[in-house]
Amino acid sequence: MAVSVTAPAGFRAGGAWIGIKAGGALDAAFVGSADGEPVVAAAVFATTDSPAAPIEVSRAHLAGSGRRVRGVVLTSGNANAATGEAGRAAARRLLEAAAHAFGGRAEDYLIAQTGLIGISFPIDAALAGFGALTASVGVDERSAETAARAIMTTDTHPKTALVEGDGFRVGGLAKGAAMIAPQMATMLAVITTDAAVEAERLDAALRAAVETTFNRITIDGCSSTNDTVVALASGRGRSPGEEFEEAVREVCAQLAHQIVADAEGGSRVGVVRVLEARDEDEALLIARQIANSLLVKASLLGGDPYWGRVLAEVGAARRGVDPSGVRIWYQGMLVAEGGLEARGGWSANEHEELTRRMAQPEVDLAVALGRGSASATVLTSDIGHGYLEENRRTS
Amino acid sequence: MAVSVTAPAGFRAGGAWIGIKAGGALDAAFVGSADGEPVVAAAVFATTDSPAAPIEVSRAHLAGSGRRVRGVVLTSGNANAATGEAGRAAARRLLEAAAHAFGGRAEDYLIAQTGLIGISFPIDAALAGFGALTASVGVDERSAETAARAIMTTDTHPKTALVEGDGFRVGGLAKGAAMIAPQMATMLAVITTDAAVEAERLDAALRAAVETTFNRITIDGCSSTNDTVVALASGRGRSPGEEFEEAVREVCAQLAHQIVADAEGGSRVGVVRVLEARDEDEALLIARQIANSLLVKASLLGGDPYWGRVLAEVGAARRGVDPSGVRIWYQGMLVAEGGLEARGGWSANEHEELTRRMAQPEVDLAVALGRGSASATVLTSDIGHGYLEENRRTS
Repeated sequence: MAVSVTAPAGFRAGGAWIGIKAGGALDAAFVGSADGEPVVAAAVFATTDSPAAPIEVSRAHLAGSGRRVRGVVLTSGNANAATGEAGRAAARRLLEAAAHAFGGRAEDYLIAQTGLIGISFPIDAALAGFGALTASVGVDERSAETAARAIMTTDTHPKTALVEGDGFRVGGLAKGAAMIAPQMATMLAVITTDAAVEAERLDAALRAAVETTFNRITIDGCSSTNDTVVALASGRGRSPGEEFEEAVREVCAQLAHQIVADAEGGSRVGVVRVLEARDEDEALLIARQIANSLLVKASLLGGDPYWGRVLAEVGAARRGVDPSGVRIWYQGMLVAEGGLEARGGWSANEHEELTRRMAQPEVDLAVALGRGSASATVLTSDIGHGYLEENRRTS
Repeated sequence: MAVSVTAPAGFRAGGAWIGIKAGGALDAAFVGSADGEPVVAAAVFATTDSPAAPIEVSRAHLAGSGRRVRGVVLTSGNANAATGEAGRAAARRLLEAAAHAFGGRAEDYLIAQTGLIGISFPIDAALAGFGALTASVGVDERSAETAARAIMTTDTHPKTALVEGDGFRVGGLAKGAAMIAPQMATMLAVITTDAAVEAERLDAALRAAVETTFNRITIDGCSSTNDTVVALASGRGRSPGEEFEEAVREVCAQLAHQIVADAEGGSRVGVVRVLEARDEDEALLIARQIANSLLVKASLLGGDPYWGRVLAEVGAARRGVDPSGVRIWYQGMLVAEGGLEARGGWSANEHEELTRRMAQPEVDLAVALGRGSASATVLTSDIGHGYLEENRRTS
């Protein structure tokens, strides 16, 4: 796997079992500055009226620290959401343990948590086991990989990315699986960079990157209580040019793609591209309408280019699009134009070719609205039987 | 089964195979005035930018006829949607055949069609077989039942309803199964009444009834290109009091419930009731957010009272609801309050009782927001493996 958050200079990471998950599976990670001193930080949180305790605590700490933190604690197995004041106290106590281990005050740390909602967080067990997390932390590749593994819930593999710029690097790790939808994509991620950037620039780069990456993926259309993306900049490298913003976007894009490709019970990624819209907002709205359609997802499961459902969603979006101006391609093959089946149907050879292309693990679905030049892309996944099995029970 | 559209005085109905579906399954129905003369009519159609041909034709005919029609032709197996001018011509030719058989002009008839989208409607076969539909029409109960069966697609049983008022009756038939979501509930329905009402009153009664019944059910959150509800009033009975509007609403409510209970691949109905909202709009918006959640539907499939997902959706609705004021009940048992698990959890006996109640075919999910006195109810279904199998392929 690619090295990730420890590849940029000035970071360390680790992962361990601290007692949240039954059975000893990795359930806690740490990503922070290598020397224990504060670094520039930015974060984007879930837009929800029901934020989990870690979001409330992290938001307060980020504001209180002047956007300079020493590290991030991440846990999996219990979201610490809908847990009230006890949950917030538990989050703060975990950060007190981090401060005790890595230096500074609890307020110098952020926290991100993922897992089941509405179940008391087992803080006593986690504190008793916290030493294992402390001991796991290192600046090597293996430590970063362990951190990426430790934040997984129903993910089947860890998600990491690395982009090298001119004199700086941007690394990242993430977890996803389900409850993935804008705004924002439900997930946890940590981005690290050794670029010398101020808090304002890091914040702006992160927000712009999230908008066109994590916020443009959907698995089940459900939003979470815990979404958190944190970026840390050590300043050990040079002050970068515009390529910095692109590098941050690229790391986020790679992680976003990995999240959709590892969707709970999913087997296929759908790249929904809406073209020839009046403006980007329109393109994005219609792309999301299509990407969130359960019928489109079911077609994706079956590898079936059922463009009628796509056209139905364009109409359901109620943007006043004239169906007779719409063209639809699956995997580069034009299947509908003028609101009708393209060319009146397929030859046997063409049908065979389309079936072959639809069997790929990634399917490109392009929809041209014929009324402008704006476009937007949303990544989606099919909904498979595994999703239903994974989510029919709380655990 | 209950008698339906022929129970009110002055109506006849029928159903037959006219050649749309392969294999000879019933695929066409007719509901019209018993004497062939025009009766008062009203209709509500799908709100979409991609209306199917039958909606375009029916809309024009209803307006052109001064809201008096002789009958409705309904077909199943092919939606005649995304079929362009050829589709509109096919719809008009079917109504010409109806006029030839039952009297008057094509413009005196409405048409509603359901089935696959984007496939040329087999008009020549349907016209050749139309005589079978003509021959099937009668004023008896059996004819109404046959009509209800003939509009089914993936429905597992016909849907009918009848309410008796003081000196009048209201009957109805409907089809549903999937692509059921506001606005409006995706489906076809015909309501008949012998009440003596003017077109304006019939229209107002129908619109009000649709708003609180068909528009408050969801199966997969997908909207269709073909939704149509038609109401016909023969005027043979008396001029009714306010109970007329309630009778129309009751017939629509019964049909709506039957549609959700027969959801494609579904096994359980969820009655999502949002209480103590600031106003009805807020209650309805949050009820829909919960009812459309794939994770809530997956919980319903598993009979799992996972209230954390419900609270997450309340937050995702972004109405500014304070989670600490929210209480949640599954099947009358309080599972969450103050944003936390109620009473800190369940005794073994309580857990057993809740599990037993969750196994019922209909589950009541009540969510009190604690900030007002308005409420709204939305009916939903679980999403089961059968839904995925039904919808992974075009046919």
